[in-house]
Amino acid sequence: MSAAQPLKGRFITVEGTEGVGKSTNIAFIKKRIESACIGGEKIELVMTREPGGTELAEEIRQILLTPRSETMSVDTELLLVFAARAQHINSVIAPALARGAWVLSDRFTDATYAYQGYGRGIDITRIRQLESFVQGDLRPDLTLLLDAPVELGLARASARGELDRIELEKKCFFEKVRAGYAAQMQREPERFSLVDATQNLCDVKNQVHRILADKLGL
Amino acid sequence: MSAAQPLKGRFITVEGTEGVGKSTNIAFIKKRIESACIGGEKIELVMTREPGGTELAEEIRQILLTPRSETMSVDTELLLVFAARAQHINSVIAPALARGAWVLSDRFTDATYAYQGYGRGIDITRIRQLESFVQGDLRPDLTLLLDAPVELGLARASARGELDRIELEKKCFFEKVRAGYAAQMQREPERFSLVDATQNLCDVKNQVHRILADKLGL
Repeated sequence: MSAAQPLKGRFITVEGTEGVGKSTNIAFIKKRIESACIGGEKIELVMTREPGGTELAEEIRQILLTPRSETMSVDTELLLVFAARAQHINSVIAPALARGAWVLSDRFTDATYAYQGYGRGIDITRIRQLESFVQGDLRPDLTLLLDAPVELGLARASARGELDRIELEKKCFFEKVRAGYAAQMQREPERFSLVDATQNLCDVKNQVHRILADKLGL
Repeated sequence: MSAAQPLKGRFITVEGTEGVGKSTNIAFIKKRIESACIGGEKIELVMTREPGGTELAEEIRQILLTPRSETMSVDTELLLVFAARAQHINSVIAPALARGAWVLSDRFTDATYAYQGYGRGIDITRIRQLESFVQGDLRPDLTLLLDAPVELGLARASARGELDRIELEKKCFFEKVRAGYAAQMQREPERFSLVDATQNLCDVKNQVHRILADKLGL
């Protein structure tokens, strides 16, 4: 242990269903962190995303997304998701936090619970087992959960051309995902901060700034 | 539950280090099973191998084997190995056993313990966690462990052109793998049958036949 303890980094994740404004909010957070300083020093910020975050993790993501005639078993899917995550943590997130950098990730394990667990019905306790296997004690310090009614998000995403007709029909799926995020927040209310994404952009930005001030002293 | 219980299949694996005669012994076993019958009926035999066994599992295997500049974390490697295994079990092994077929696999989880665990030094307890996550209670009914001094196996494999100079130098690695197999056998002596692979082919075949008779009533 050196006398000068390194500044411990902070791990921030942004979660939410389709069209809820993740990119915009991530841009707000990025700008706020980059303009801040702690102890007179600028904060090193590492921007990343899941699934992916490294070249190898993106290769694993490709296997997950490639359509094929062979049915992928639920366990295979879950193990691949966490294989990519293990790689992301070991080569990006953990080294950054260890050197005192802050990490801002577009989605993380809460998305696995919300999409795979609540959305697709994969056993939550099996997700929890792999979470603890891969992450040990590593959890985000702060998770901003952007929330809006599913219709609103889907309409926005559709207007951007991100969703096709069939995806728009899966409203019921996204309702389950939204409920899954709410359940995650209920389990760890201290870690989560809810952002009401139905408000206008200026008010959403104010919410985000208030959360960063309250939770991270920015 | 139907009145006529299906014949429960048997799951047989063959393990051993390089050049120890796995292919030859697998051919002996295959022939013996195919010439046998139980209750007047032929046995359906499914031949498979690990890592791989399905198209998707082979894709995962490719990710494991592809050289890249990014260092693959130990957890990523282990999760990928078990992702491929989950797929292999769910789409090949379990359905075959459920319909009463016998499954003969060239390598299975003991190889993960021997190569990744004992050979490469990956934490055995973490392998055990994933084994139980992916396999539940599924274990081979019988594992034939072909054993010979490492020099002998490496010399044979080298004569077949399967090993290059560098691989031959890694004798110490294969010593650890051999010791790992021995440790696995010690943990589950009932499941394992040792085949002395230093004997001549005829005697090896006799050993295999005796094991199949004793353990599986063939």
